[in-house]
Amino acid sequence: MKIEVTQEKLSKALNIVSRIANGRVTLPVLNNVLMRVDNKKVTLTTTNLDMAVVDYLPVSKSEDGVVTVPARLLAEFVANLPKGENIEISAKDTKVTIKAGKYSSVINGTLADDFPELPEINEKEAVVFKIGVDEFKTSINQVIIASSNDLTRPALTGVYFNTIDKELAVAATDGYRLAEKILVDKVESEVAAIVPTASLQEVMRSLSDDVDEIELSFSEDLVRFRMGEVEIISKLIDGSFPEYRKLFPTDNDIEVTLPKDELIRVTKLAALFAREVGGSITCETKKAGGFSVKSVANEFGENDSEIDTEVKVEGKVNLNSRFLIDALNAMDENKIVVTFSSKIAPVLIKNVKSKKYTHIIMPLNS
Amino acid sequence: MKIEVTQEKLSKALNIVSRIANGRVTLPVLNNVLMRVDNKKVTLTTTNLDMAVVDYLPVSKSEDGVVTVPARLLAEFVANLPKGENIEISAKDTKVTIKAGKYSSVINGTLADDFPELPEINEKEAVVFKIGVDEFKTSINQVIIASSNDLTRPALTGVYFNTIDKELAVAATDGYRLAEKILVDKVESEVAAIVPTASLQEVMRSLSDDVDEIELSFSEDLVRFRMGEVEIISKLIDGSFPEYRKLFPTDNDIEVTLPKDELIRVTKLAALFAREVGGSITCETKKAGGFSVKSVANEFGENDSEIDTEVKVEGKVNLNSRFLIDALNAMDENKIVVTFSSKIAPVLIKNVKSKKYTHIIMPLNS
Repeated sequence: MKIEVTQEKLSKALNIVSRIANGRVTLPVLNNVLMRVDNKKVTLTTTNLDMAVVDYLPVSKSEDGVVTVPARLLAEFVANLPKGENIEISAKDTKVTIKAGKYSSVINGTLADDFPELPEINEKEAVVFKIGVDEFKTSINQVIIASSNDLTRPALTGVYFNTIDKELAVAATDGYRLAEKILVDKVESEVAAIVPTASLQEVMRSLSDDVDEIELSFSEDLVRFRMGEVEIISKLIDGSFPEYRKLFPTDNDIEVTLPKDELIRVTKLAALFAREVGGSITCETKKAGGFSVKSVANEFGENDSEIDTEVKVEGKVNLNSRFLIDALNAMDENKIVVTFSSKIAPVLIKNVKSKKYTHIIMPLNS
Repeated sequence: MKIEVTQEKLSKALNIVSRIANGRVTLPVLNNVLMRVDNKKVTLTTTNLDMAVVDYLPVSKSEDGVVTVPARLLAEFVANLPKGENIEISAKDTKVTIKAGKYSSVINGTLADDFPELPEINEKEAVVFKIGVDEFKTSINQVIIASSNDLTRPALTGVYFNTIDKELAVAATDGYRLAEKILVDKVESEVAAIVPTASLQEVMRSLSDDVDEIELSFSEDLVRFRMGEVEIISKLIDGSFPEYRKLFPTDNDIEVTLPKDELIRVTKLAALFAREVGGSITCETKKAGGFSVKSVANEFGENDSEIDTEVKVEGKVNLNSRFLIDALNAMDENKIVVTFSSKIAPVLIKNVKSKKYTHIIMPLNS
């Protein structure tokens, strides 16, 4: 096996693939990157068994062959070489020689036989969507914040990709809050799949500035994300996601329109005093005074701020301040609508104009 | 007690003083900032008993009085208020009210009686030095890297300020390496004091861009750093610092001149392979080939790089790669001189031109 490639290209590729090769001791070969040259096609692959990252590396010269090399060592070695150098990597059995100008090293690799087989998408049956990268990034960031890391409820540790009414939506919930975003307006195919949050985070980190579009392919228990020279293949989470649209409140009688930045500020101020009470703050509408955010008086003191806005119905609700701040930071517009009810119904937060993003938070008991 | 001050000034001052007020539970009042107004002079003070930070706050209006308030809560509250707001803080007994435009809070403070007495410099006996901030920052950064955090050897957990031959030097050592910098060329007074590394780090963090000069006053077991509106008073470490200049090697027979950046690069490359052997790398001079940096062959592989330079005497030495990288990053110039000996003598690293900075590293056994 032999390749010739510039330092920049190799370092970028190794950076992306080496992240998931991080010291799982039960199967040492998972620390390695599989370098394969097959008829001038060069691939770098790592896997943690839940997902695999593949980079198709454009090289100037190559000779067929395959070997695995400790991924982080190789990535750090190449990162420390001078930019602009041409790098030659050649393998003889498991001895991998890296040469770049006057720098040279020998790294002990392993035979590729031990490297796990990678799962493959069934191309014929796959359901495929193409999405602009900016829209994808924004949307995933808007919903991933609501996903859970409670491993006892695996279905909630992912983001649910599902088609409803000819739209592709993504949704996540940890049981206390829920976020949904319409990702694609008109779709013909159908899908209902839970993608692990960890895999999506890897996808987000692997998106480079020169990629405009991301292709998602779902087939049975797998999803593949294709973005430029990088592919990430992940297992789906086996479980059923809650029928979440039933949770969207329909008869919240209290509705206020608020400036997002100002609401973030007063929520942060109240949150400082709410630490002793689990972050609980009280939001209240008053016909005379607008919208108030108050922290319950405690050991440290108390705080009460008001935002001028039109109030038709008076009422109050207790919320976790961190959840409210997360939700507000995820809103697209600076004018937002908050609705709630005096009964224990979820609080709904939307943009004034764009209806694609929905965030709901369960109130705390007063 | 009452003060009026802009958000920017108050936030900057609270940021500096609140850092050391961090949750020492044995004496809760140490989490508080002492706010004192005495005849229009406003001071904010925090202490962790080893050191105290005092900020002289310029205010537009004030009324005499004193109170203590949870430092971090107040700092975060003020940081979240809009820039440009005028802030009014008033205390009635221990109820502290903060008002800024339409924002208002009440924080529960405590009476100032419990706040510890602060140590005071004996102005008459104090030995005073004034140093330019840039020179001070550079020098402390150059030596502080060699200080120890081994609490069983307290004298090594600080930086030694000492006058030798009418020069003020700072030095630090952890027993494996040692760094010395001449801080002031011609001084009349004499000092020999070990300043805790933690206090110096606080001083470094408190230096703002609008301060040009720092004043150091040593008296008995205390040191005071005065920089603009901020003063830090710290206890000195009670102990005797090694007579370190005796350790400077005088008969190292091997000497090479090297480009710093290139030596950092090859040391980093070798260090990647040296992880399994405690970071040990081998530096060698060869009449035929210059200066080589090699990592001992191990499980992962091996690495060998050479830098062209004139070699008169051949020899080799084993060094901890992290110590070498720290030392190189601290050098002022890009051309440096490394001297060592085939005997187990310390390795000496200096700039080619400026002789003010000296760094020595003990070699590892081969």
